Amino acid sequence: MAQGRDTSRDGFGNKLQTLFLTNFKGVWDFIQSNKTLKRKVNKFLINNAIYKAPTRPYPFSLMTLDPYIPGTADDRFQAVEGYVPGKGLPKKTDTYTSWESLINRTYIGRHLPPDPEFNKPENLPALEELTVLFKKKESNGKPVTIYSEKSTLLFPYWVQWFTDGFLRKKDRVEWFKNTSNHHIDLCPVYGLTASKTAMLRAFKGGKLKSQILNGEEYPPFYYEDPEKGIVKPEFEGLYEPLSDERNLEPAKKAKLFAMGVERANVQIGYVMLNVLCLREHNRLCDLLAKNCPTWDDERLFQTARNILLVVIMKIILEEYINHITPYHFKFFVDPSSFTNERWYRTNWMTMEFSLVYRWHSALPSTLIYGGQEIPMQASLWNNQMLIDQGLGTLFEETSSQPAARIGLFNTADFLLPVELASIDLGRKSQMASYNDYREMCQYPRVTDFNQITSDPDAQRYLKDLYGNVDRVEFYVGLYAEDVRKNSALAPLIGRLVGIDAFSQALTNPLLAESIFNPETFSPVGWEVIHTTNTLSDLVNRNTPQNGKSYKVTFYRSR
Amino acid sequence: MAQGRDTSRDGFGNKLQTLFLTNFKGVWDFIQSNKTLKRKVNKFLINNAIYKAPTRPYPFSLMTLDPYIPGTADDRFQAVEGYVPGKGLPKKTDTYTSWESLINRTYIGRHLPPDPEFNKPENLPALEELTVLFKKKESNGKPVTIYSEKSTLLFPYWVQWFTDGFLRKKDRVEWFKNTSNHHIDLCPVYGLTASKTAMLRAFKGGKLKSQILNGEEYPPFYYEDPEKGIVKPEFEGLYEPLSDERNLEPAKKAKLFAMGVERANVQIGYVMLNVLCLREHNRLCDLLAKNCPTWDDERLFQTARNILLVVIMKIILEEYINHITPYHFKFFVDPSSFTNERWYRTNWMTMEFSLVYRWHSALPSTLIYGGQEIPMQASLWNNQMLIDQGLGTLFEETSSQPAARIGLFNTADFLLPVELASIDLGRKSQMASYNDYREMCQYPRVTDFNQITSDPDAQRYLKDLYGNVDRVEFYVGLYAEDVRKNSALAPLIGRLVGIDAFSQALTNPLLAESIFNPETFSPVGWEVIHTTNTLSDLVNRNTPQNGKSYKVTFYRSR
Repeated sequence: MAQGRDTSRDGFGNKLQTLFLTNFKGVWDFIQSNKTLKRKVNKFLINNAIYKAPTRPYPFSLMTLDPYIPGTADDRFQAVEGYVPGKGLPKKTDTYTSWESLINRTYIGRHLPPDPEFNKPENLPALEELTVLFKKKESNGKPVTIYSEKSTLLFPYWVQWFTDGFLRKKDRVEWFKNTSNHHIDLCPVYGLTASKTAMLRAFKGGKLKSQILNGEEYPPFYYEDPEKGIVKPEFEGLYEPLSDERNLEPAKKAKLFAMGVERANVQIGYVMLNVLCLREHNRLCDLLAKNCPTWDDERLFQTARNILLVVIMKIILEEYINHITPYHFKFFVDPSSFTNERWYRTNWMTMEFSLVYRWHSALPSTLIYGGQEIPMQASLWNNQMLIDQGLGTLFEETSSQPAARIGLFNTADFLLPVELASIDLGRKSQMASYNDYREMCQYPRVTDFNQITSDPDAQRYLKDLYGNVDRVEFYVGLYAEDVRKNSALAPLIGRLVGIDAFSQALTNPLLAESIFNPETFSPVGWEVIHTTNTLSDLVNRNTPQNGKSYKVTFYRSR
Repeated sequence: MAQGRDTSRDGFGNKLQTLFLTNFKGVWDFIQSNKTLKRKVNKFLINNAIYKAPTRPYPFSLMTLDPYIPGTADDRFQAVEGYVPGKGLPKKTDTYTSWESLINRTYIGRHLPPDPEFNKPENLPALEELTVLFKKKESNGKPVTIYSEKSTLLFPYWVQWFTDGFLRKKDRVEWFKNTSNHHIDLCPVYGLTASKTAMLRAFKGGKLKSQILNGEEYPPFYYEDPEKGIVKPEFEGLYEPLSDERNLEPAKKAKLFAMGVERANVQIGYVMLNVLCLREHNRLCDLLAKNCPTWDDERLFQTARNILLVVIMKIILEEYINHITPYHFKFFVDPSSFTNERWYRTNWMTMEFSLVYRWHSALPSTLIYGGQEIPMQASLWNNQMLIDQGLGTLFEETSSQPAARIGLFNTADFLLPVELASIDLGRKSQMASYNDYREMCQYPRVTDFNQITSDPDAQRYLKDLYGNVDRVEFYVGLYAEDVRKNSALAPLIGRLVGIDAFSQALTNPLLAESIFNPETFSPVGWEVIHTTNTLSDLVNRNTPQNGKSYKVTFYRSR
């Protein structure tokens, strides 16, 4: 069994690129000191990241895996052979391109075609056997968490929150569908459709409905009668509650906030970011009203939303992306650089992107709250924790403790079933192999397990489970790779994040040529966009300051 | 009053371009004899056509004209000031960009922002006064039809049919919405949604339901009981019948075909083209089944549809487009040339495109049918005409008589109310002025009526009605312009058609890099695509030949 990792299959070009991007700080400083050069390099590196894989539109979506022909769930088809009442006409899950699959974006997209042969049960280990890859190792009978060297707990909180806006599996039955519009549109804050947005609006001064608790602004509570599980009439139909919410004790139900999506109350981190956006939205409304006194509620609302959307995209594309890369060069938002790129196509979130963004292992088993160590599970569906501490204090405490490292042997016990469910989702989606995805992303195929990971245990388990590297599943391979030095992510995850994140964020219509201008956002909104650079800016202007500034950062070392 | 037309405001660049494109046949022949050169020039000229105006996405859609806030038609909002039961919360129709308007493609798009000032009733002539511009002039007490020098009657038939697939105003109440997916998808043949498509399918061999009449294939009849107006249960909900259809005499109702959209039976030309597509679809199914014996019904259906869609797009982009231009160079479909263009953006049909394509004047007051002159109105909702003659004969007779010229003083009486309704739609949509659209399309603004048209009557009427050229409405200006020599269209219409047609047809997902290949269409389908060049090819392989070939052409002179 090899110790360390055999890097012979990393690819010469890839190695050279990493070498160049992670060294020669002086060169990068020079590049970034020159505005023209900096723009050119920014464009080159972003294109370089995206063009690592073929561009949209893709020939297939997960529609091929819908067992029924869309539009046939109707008794008028009962005379047709094979009709299943309430379901429709069954179809072979064969792989071919249909007009409906090219146009119907309620289905999840996919980069590579389905590979039914690879996913035959007899070719893969039993699902439960894979638990061993994700379960924390033990030391003295206690599970050991491997902490990230780079990221604070704010990092996984942020990621779960913003990706939940567009990676939105419909439900267990129609798992092949996405309920979002495939854009970063802050649906966790504003709701999934216009009618849901309307439920959340105050229709006064452009603002979202809110309440004041302990002197700070929060969304209104969601339940009218938490004991009976009855929602306030104004929020009826806002979303379909998850079973976790339905089974919640009344005391916790009583504190759930009325927010955009069914998952918005799930964990304290998600709630913190949603509350932050609500405060910023309402703050922007006041600012706009002051500067544009003739505007009515509707215009104030729409413009505040547009400004906030762009501010969040800027934090994603600058603060967040620059945190995950180990590069000296810092990417920045420069939408007009990309108008002529062939990747600039209608957004369509893929199953690969969804699997790449399941960073369950980044959440430690415990967190520090109010100076005490408590189980992570205590932070689920528990808004009282936020109300008690206040937003600023909680952001600071979150930024003062580490995230766990993304990878194998590091998932909290309560999330192990979620890891297995994700692998199962990959199988149902008939994902191609880990090696196929390496190839798609211009990495050489690996020929030995010691080329994936330097961890001898991981190497051994993978070999025992899969026998042959070509049989390693996409999801498992992603998380088995070693995290790169100074990076938050393993190489294939990083590459796939780059492809989909850049090519689907920079295509946001608010960043388009004829829209990204002061006319759309108002001059004062345009200024807000250009002077807001970090999550810290947002938090510190939306919390009672009491003369102090809260530390808000993804970086452990800062 | 000037005689002739003052061309001083045509623009030097525009004149030069036309001069070059319509002369020097030898040079154009040379260019088209060299494959590489031909591709480059094709790319250059198509880009040149599209880049005459700013590209998508546009900052505004007709959502700004929806008097209510989307999603608020719900009694839960009754406590909010201004709520209108069943309608929702009213909003000012002020012009600003909202997230909903950028993302909600059920609204019609627009190139230029709304211009409420221009459209104030006091700034425009009364609607009825404009009839004089469109009504045919009389000679000896009889209306005179000006015939096209270039086009046969097949031309307006074709245009009405294919544009009705994507220029689809929802209804009178929600006139600002479009019920299509903004693509050329043959919804007139296949229905607007998956469930409607399913109603039209036989679920056998991939085919569409059909019947044989006089030895030729047609769609099934739509009504179960024409007397009572009861539709066959299998087609219930296929579409909402227009009032013209509801008021139809039972004998005509009995012959209506079950087809994709509410307008499909409206006129004999529309029906001819729909029937042709049905036959070609079912023919392709037989061809595919022979070549791919393992395919099931679903795959045969989807692939036949994909092939037919591309064949129709090819006829649009080659036969049709080359007919309307007066150029020596013949455009051809070369999708891979355009992957890096900034116009390659998500489709969104505009109100301008809809107004540009209202060629009511191209339909003469009478047509020749079975050698007899009959009123055009007799060809409405009258499928018996087609069943009696057969498809080939009717195509040939249609190709043997002229269309009327598109322009003023040439609309059949029964279509005059439709012209006024179109102008009214432009006003409700707050279209900018004719001169503003000239400017948008890189034509100099006109300064005198004699720069629009050489017709002294038109000049005089326009002056009487509008007083100042800057007050001329978009719709009126479009049709008042002189048709260019050897062209089927006036200059501004031609330019706007080029912009939207090229930039929204070449973006069809079936023409995209990773999809436009033999894998998608099957090798035999790929061959069909590459060997079908004209509508004549389609007609002649889908009609009983009896040893003869039918003449099918847009050109009068051929």
